[in-house]
Amino acid sequence: MPSTTLEYPTQPYSKVNRYDARATYSLETIHQIVNSCPILHVSFNAPGSPFPTVLPMIGQMGSFARPSADTGDVLDLYLHGYVSSRIMNLSRKEADGEGHQDAAGAPPPPGLPVTIAASHVDGLILSLTPNTHDYNYRSAVLFGRATVVTDADEKLYGMELITDSVVRDRWRHTRVPPSSAEYQSTSILRVKIEAGSAKVRTGVPRDNKDDMEDAELRGRVWTGMIPMHLTMGEPIAGPYNKVDKLPGYLDEARKDFNAWNEEVALEAAAKVMAAKPKPEDEED
Amino acid sequence: MPSTTLEYPTQPYSKVNRYDARATYSLETIHQIVNSCPILHVSFNAPGSPFPTVLPMIGQMGSFARPSADTGDVLDLYLHGYVSSRIMNLSRKEADGEGHQDAAGAPPPPGLPVTIAASHVDGLILSLTPNTHDYNYRSAVLFGRATVVTDADEKLYGMELITDSVVRDRWRHTRVPPSSAEYQSTSILRVKIEAGSAKVRTGVPRDNKDDMEDAELRGRVWTGMIPMHLTMGEPIAGPYNKVDKLPGYLDEARKDFNAWNEEVALEAAAKVMAAKPKPEDEED
Repeated sequence: MPSTTLEYPTQPYSKVNRYDARATYSLETIHQIVNSCPILHVSFNAPGSPFPTVLPMIGQMGSFARPSADTGDVLDLYLHGYVSSRIMNLSRKEADGEGHQDAAGAPPPPGLPVTIAASHVDGLILSLTPNTHDYNYRSAVLFGRATVVTDADEKLYGMELITDSVVRDRWRHTRVPPSSAEYQSTSILRVKIEAGSAKVRTGVPRDNKDDMEDAELRGRVWTGMIPMHLTMGEPIAGPYNKVDKLPGYLDEARKDFNAWNEEVALEAAAKVMAAKPKPEDEED
Repeated sequence: MPSTTLEYPTQPYSKVNRYDARATYSLETIHQIVNSCPILHVSFNAPGSPFPTVLPMIGQMGSFARPSADTGDVLDLYLHGYVSSRIMNLSRKEADGEGHQDAAGAPPPPGLPVTIAASHVDGLILSLTPNTHDYNYRSAVLFGRATVVTDADEKLYGMELITDSVVRDRWRHTRVPPSSAEYQSTSILRVKIEAGSAKVRTGVPRDNKDDMEDAELRGRVWTGMIPMHLTMGEPIAGPYNKVDKLPGYLDEARKDFNAWNEEVALEAAAKVMAAKPKPEDEED
């Protein structure tokens, strides 16, 4: 890796402990996994419950201070969710200093501590024995503190960023800017990231040496990979649509989404054929 | 709904507070969302961190006491994860009574409190203004206490259940049973469920009355749905595969997976054409 690649610091809560050969702390890799995930799972603690709350939300990495920043730069996570009232209220309280103190009694940085998870399955790895079955996958976790965006321009930036992450270029092709009522009823959270990690698995099935030398077994159990990816189907016009032809930007966004997702899954699969098989018990 | 439909009790931590017309507490619906999700996000608190830990894991609902139970029956969640050492250790400690006490000083039920989230995006809902954009989706959350399965037969049951949830009928077509070493190195968690909820959105785009009566806007902005679903691509034999032809059970499992996922997305889309448009600001 070039020395210019930024990495998140490894904290006790963010360090990958198992299969750590698959781990990465690269901002570029982590942010790309997050940005291409249609649903993020946002986890945080609400008072009075032993169970963390988990909300599915839509989000995107961005920089309001420097909108032209690259995916591998230091970025914030902007979140928008339908089920957001609880997290928004908690986040306001924490920002007002009503939150917990840390063990040393010092006030923590402002914001509600949240953990954000993003995962993609790129394929099934079918090997000789259930124990060695696996996925090709990309999964990322970010740890940070969430606060409600109050600055009007930053809120608008977040809304546009998130809308265009769902369908490229959609924002400017709709009725914008939001009305005053829409603006008031929408909340955007900014998560300042403190740490993050990702795990990525690509490549070949692997089995133990004994199984791989068992000719009867290898003649009986099919081994290989089944690529898996998200697909967007044919667009269906809604009941009050009056635009006859699907606009080009929508058609292109859909085709690019499908091509990119299929390519990621097939690239992981391509390594199956390129790599030499190596017994599962001879490394890691 | 028939009166025989079981529902999870609504707890303060499990009640859906926003868009609750989309909420359901039906065991059948929740379990089906969980069982068809290739990655579950499991969230829990580790000592010393303000951030919940979130691990992507594979899991399936089942009943060891009554393996023939239906999806809508009372079931446990069986989990297997590659990054499992932390959660397994915490779960062992909690089972041994080293865990927290609740506010009243009474010992809580055994097991580590975990929250499990499962989400599917079934389509993009593209409406006239960003504020009314949405997904068709199915998302479920379960709350329960996780303990490590120690009974040998139950562990084997969990391993087979989870393997066959990834590819139907795969277990008996591989080298089984697991060796003693494999058996020792694999951990299976059983989560006893205390509560759960789901949210499901299907159907039409919706917009505010003013926007829907704006002929210029409706002539300019394409509105409708783009179905989205997971797809399994063409299987690719691995480097040490010696089985010439893809076995029928694999081919069928893949085709059924694709057909089912596409059907769910298209069924949600079909409601777009069947339903009458109703302004977004006239209900809920």
